[in-house]
Amino acid sequence: MNTRHIITSETFARPWIEQIINRAEQFMQDGFVHTLPNKIIGTYFFEPSTRTRLSFTTAGYRLGAEVVGFDNVAGTSIAKGESLEDTIRMVSNYSDVIIMRHPETGSAKRAADIATVPVINAGDGANQHPSQTLLDLVTIKQALGRLDDFKILMIGDIEYSRVVHSLADTLKLFNNVEQVLINPMKESYQPYLADADIILVTRVQHERYSDAQAVAEFKESYCFSVADAQQMKSGAKIISPLPRLSELPTTLDLLPQAYYFQQAAFGVPVRAALLEYVLGVW
Amino acid sequence: MNTRHIITSETFARPWIEQIINRAEQFMQDGFVHTLPNKIIGTYFFEPSTRTRLSFTTAGYRLGAEVVGFDNVAGTSIAKGESLEDTIRMVSNYSDVIIMRHPETGSAKRAADIATVPVINAGDGANQHPSQTLLDLVTIKQALGRLDDFKILMIGDIEYSRVVHSLADTLKLFNNVEQVLINPMKESYQPYLADADIILVTRVQHERYSDAQAVAEFKESYCFSVADAQQMKSGAKIISPLPRLSELPTTLDLLPQAYYFQQAAFGVPVRAALLEYVLGVW
Amino acid sequence: MNTRHIITSETFARPWIEQIINRAEQFMQDGFVHTLPNKIIGTYFFEPSTRTRLSFTTAGYRLGAEVVGFDNVAGTSIAKGESLEDTIRMVSNYSDVIIMRHPETGSAKRAADIATVPVINAGDGANQHPSQTLLDLVTIKQALGRLDDFKILMIGDIEYSRVVHSLADTLKLFNNVEQVLINPMKESYQPYLADADIILVTRVQHERYSDAQAVAEFKESYCFSVADAQQMKSGAKIISPLPRLSELPTTLDLLPQAYYFQQAAFGVPVRAALLEYVLGVW
Repeated sequence: MNTRHIITSETFARPWIEQIINRAEQFMQDGFVHTLPNKIIGTYFFEPSTRTRLSFTTAGYRLGAEVVGFDNVAGTSIAKGESLEDTIRMVSNYSDVIIMRHPETGSAKRAADIATVPVINAGDGANQHPSQTLLDLVTIKQALGRLDDFKILMIGDIEYSRVVHSLADTLKLFNNVEQVLINPMKESYQPYLADADIILVTRVQHERYSDAQAVAEFKESYCFSVADAQQMKSGAKIISPLPRLSELPTTLDLLPQAYYFQQAAFGVPVRAALLEYVLGVW
Repeated sequence: MNTRHIITSETFARPWIEQIINRAEQFMQDGFVHTLPNKIIGTYFFEPSTRTRLSFTTAGYRLGAEVVGFDNVAGTSIAKGESLEDTIRMVSNYSDVIIMRHPETGSAKRAADIATVPVINAGDGANQHPSQTLLDLVTIKQALGRLDDFKILMIGDIEYSRVVHSLADTLKLFNNVEQVLINPMKESYQPYLADADIILVTRVQHERYSDAQAVAEFKESYCFSVADAQQMKSGAKIISPLPRLSELPTTLDLLPQAYYFQQAAFGVPVRAALLEYVLGVW
Repeated sequence: MNTRHIITSETFARPWIEQIINRAEQFMQDGFVHTLPNKIIGTYFFEPSTRTRLSFTTAGYRLGAEVVGFDNVAGTSIAKGESLEDTIRMVSNYSDVIIMRHPETGSAKRAADIATVPVINAGDGANQHPSQTLLDLVTIKQALGRLDDFKILMIGDIEYSRVVHSLADTLKLFNNVEQVLINPMKESYQPYLADADIILVTRVQHERYSDAQAVAEFKESYCFSVADAQQMKSGAKIISPLPRLSELPTTLDLLPQAYYFQQAAFGVPVRAALLEYVLGVW
């Protein structure tokens, strides 16, 4: 069997996605079992991330594995200029899987080319974050009961959002999914509110702008309001990768349309399914 | 059963305290057993703390649990302004209990209002640190064999010490406990040395002062000496939350009155008892 | 039984080294077993180190233990001036073994004098790093099949390299080991290339120099080339503690002489053997 890396959502096939989602849903319904005893999960975060790191860590523990890694490279040989390739060779000795976040586009692919164990890309700069895409898909499935035949409105910093790009591409694998992508600085999303089954609200990617003024204008232009939510059709849901800034005010939180906290709860089961897959449980 | 949070020592009742102490003493005598298999303990430290974080972590492992968390929020979405409420909703998905240290007074209560799992306050600014109070109580019980009918002298930065405030308040639940609180900058503690069964020596709370001169004067004024210890009555003990500065010189360490290193050893069993309680083992 | 500390390679005896190597080789051949259930390994790194910390952590997990510790003391009471002795007394309560890295020469010995559990020195400044020496010995044994009757050329910053000093001293315990130590700034290593069975290539210890110019000159003078490797005799191997700078170019990596990535894989089994020893498994 070839090593099973998860580097980009571009290579996802529909049957595989359905397997991952089914397994994640099984965990949600029946709880976790120790399918990974004696395994060591490695979480190597060259950039900090609480949300992604902790959800993979918890997934590992729920399956009976142990977890090693780092989330702060300041002061280490890595910060002093060890090559990514040498670091990956090193950590291949410490864990049975490499979960990696790194600021450079393409770094996860470079790691997979070197590693002797599976690599899961937990974010390579602005490029790919495939487990987030799977989490978004599980969320839609849980919200609607299906991944075909629905309309999705994605609002945010469309040009720079890897969340939006990856989900939009992946949804092309499903049937009759109508996608509308809106940058609220350039165009109103109001005309589409009543029609969407799912509304994905993402924040401004402020780290991508050098111009603080542009970020401030973006933020000012963009706040999904209770009035917006009330225009949504019955059963439609607002989802978001979180963390949120001003685009998702807390006044939405108790509305039936708000689904982003439920979404957050799916992170552990979907990552547990991924860990099982790359480690060959099924 | 309602969720069992531990937010403040103000709500402690004597029978509950005795249960916790009895369980901690049982651990000291018989060792630990795996009463928390398949549980995940979350240690979320928005401010660094080696002592408290590691004692909860070790307590979790001794009971067969796993431990996730963070102790450094620099560079994360938390540092970038995610609300405490959103962070607590997130970590409720990762662990079966939330052990939290945060710089703001009242933060632990806010967390408990949101969390779907038990919250243990491991320090909310200058306000409360209830497991420290329980540790002080176990220490007195171990030192004297009782929690009623004794005299305690508390020396230190009385106005600003949460350790002193919480212990002083909690001791009111017990019978015939005579308390004397002395700020050595303002008053001599000498007259009380021969009379006390327990002497709690706490450091200057230098983080509460903006005036370096005031801190330096405080420190200079205050060093519990071997001569002081020799005035103590037979069987009386010096306790301290540690870490120490100049107020507890190492020349005391080998005296029979010095009990602060024994005290440090009670941190893991008392926190193990707390974990069992909030997770419903008894 | 006295507490089994590992502080310096100077106290190693040949039969003990052979026991450690045999056990490490057994792990490499047969895999790990849970000989340390219910044990807690403490990794206390007052200076960051990814390589050493992770290899001890993984070794602990492979043997069924749990791992606690810190790798960043910024903001803690340790950084605020708690004495090493007080910190060691504290952590003796949290783990069954203390693995410690500290910037000061002699700190590990001071820790062993205070600790109530075994101490393993994982680097005390420029002084000692005994598990690295054992790793070098396992590597030579794996490369040559023996630890007697061979020639070793050590190239690098000879005056300041603790790796070189410790290995050179320890090899005196073995029979007929010819050692040549060369600082390439001062002398050519070329005449010795064809004769050596093992060539240890170590980097400039730039943290020991105040003069950036001297470091730059050192680096410029020193690059082990493919032409160098081709002068080596059949079966001879290049080893290195890694990380590498320019002294070991990646053009060497695929040559049969390059043995430094294999060496990196021996770090976990040799540290697992050490953990078993200090915890009294054998």
